[in-house]
Amino acid sequence: MDQPKKKAGAPTAFLLAQVGAHAASQFAERLAVLQIKPSDAGILRLLGISAGINQQELSGKLGIHPSRLVAILDELERRGFVQRKPNEEDRRHYALYLADAGRALLEQIGRIARQHQDALCAALSHEEREALAELLQKIADQQGLTPGVHPGYRRMKSN
Amino acid sequence: MDQPKKKAGAPTAFLLAQVGAHAASQFAERLAVLQIKPSDAGILRLLGISAGINQQELSGKLGIHPSRLVAILDELERRGFVQRKPNEEDRRHYALYLADAGRALLEQIGRIARQHQDALCAALSHEEREALAELLQKIADQQGLTPGVHPGYRRMKSN
Repeated sequence: MDQPKKKAGAPTAFLLAQVGAHAASQFAERLAVLQIKPSDAGILRLLGISAGINQQELSGKLGIHPSRLVAILDELERRGFVQRKPNEEDRRHYALYLADAGRALLEQIGRIARQHQDALCAALSHEEREALAELLQKIADQQGLTPGVHPGYRRMKSN
Repeated sequence: MDQPKKKAGAPTAFLLAQVGAHAASQFAERLAVLQIKPSDAGILRLLGISAGINQQELSGKLGIHPSRLVAILDELERRGFVQRKPNEEDRRHYALYLADAGRALLEQIGRIARQHQDALCAALSHEEREALAELLQKIADQQGLTPGVHPGYRRMKSN
């Protein structure tokens, strides 16, 4: 009680929202050179690790309105990044795959994501970045966030 | 090189955007009981620490479009939370103050913010919360974010 009180900084929850919004907008700005949005990048990334997932499974995983997902996939298919194939076991559901151009785009997205992270975390050492990721992952797990899925999909309006 | 590779988790920049968006939406949900938005809460908090600031200074600090700020202040004044007083030195600018009801509301906001933070950071010990806040503050400082100001004000459309 004799020690001088540490100057209180901004609350952790506010800093999370502030730095998180900054991270999201900086990533969106960087992705604009590829003429895609972070929501497109997230879908391409999921297709890269879950080839053959169907539209219903994907909309459930993202928490996105199915009609909105269809509109996004229409555009990604039109641009040659995604292929829809009839599912042999259940013809009601298209199975989704990355096309060759989609795989190439995903590599570009990966490079941009690494540049973005390096710029965003320029103030932190390698060890501090790992410590930060561990603390954030603890929160994400306890809060029940789906790994790799930004909560923004849930708030996208239907088409 | 002989050690087993550590399993790579989600990238730090993605976790920041993911957990940050979750933090923001949870706070917005909690504030809904007071019938205010996080953007209102941020403005009331600034008026609580900068009594007498004028509209032009406030819009500059927030990076918000002046006409949008006027609309928000109109509503906060109508509800009795904010007072505008003619500035004696410069009659072009209203000076802004919290009304008594605004000070009471700010106390309620503070309680809600603490509950929000406790729930959001339930997975972390007190020391971990402090470590997280320090890492986030380092990023915020290096990225040039204005203390206490959420980047969302900059993206609000004009009225």
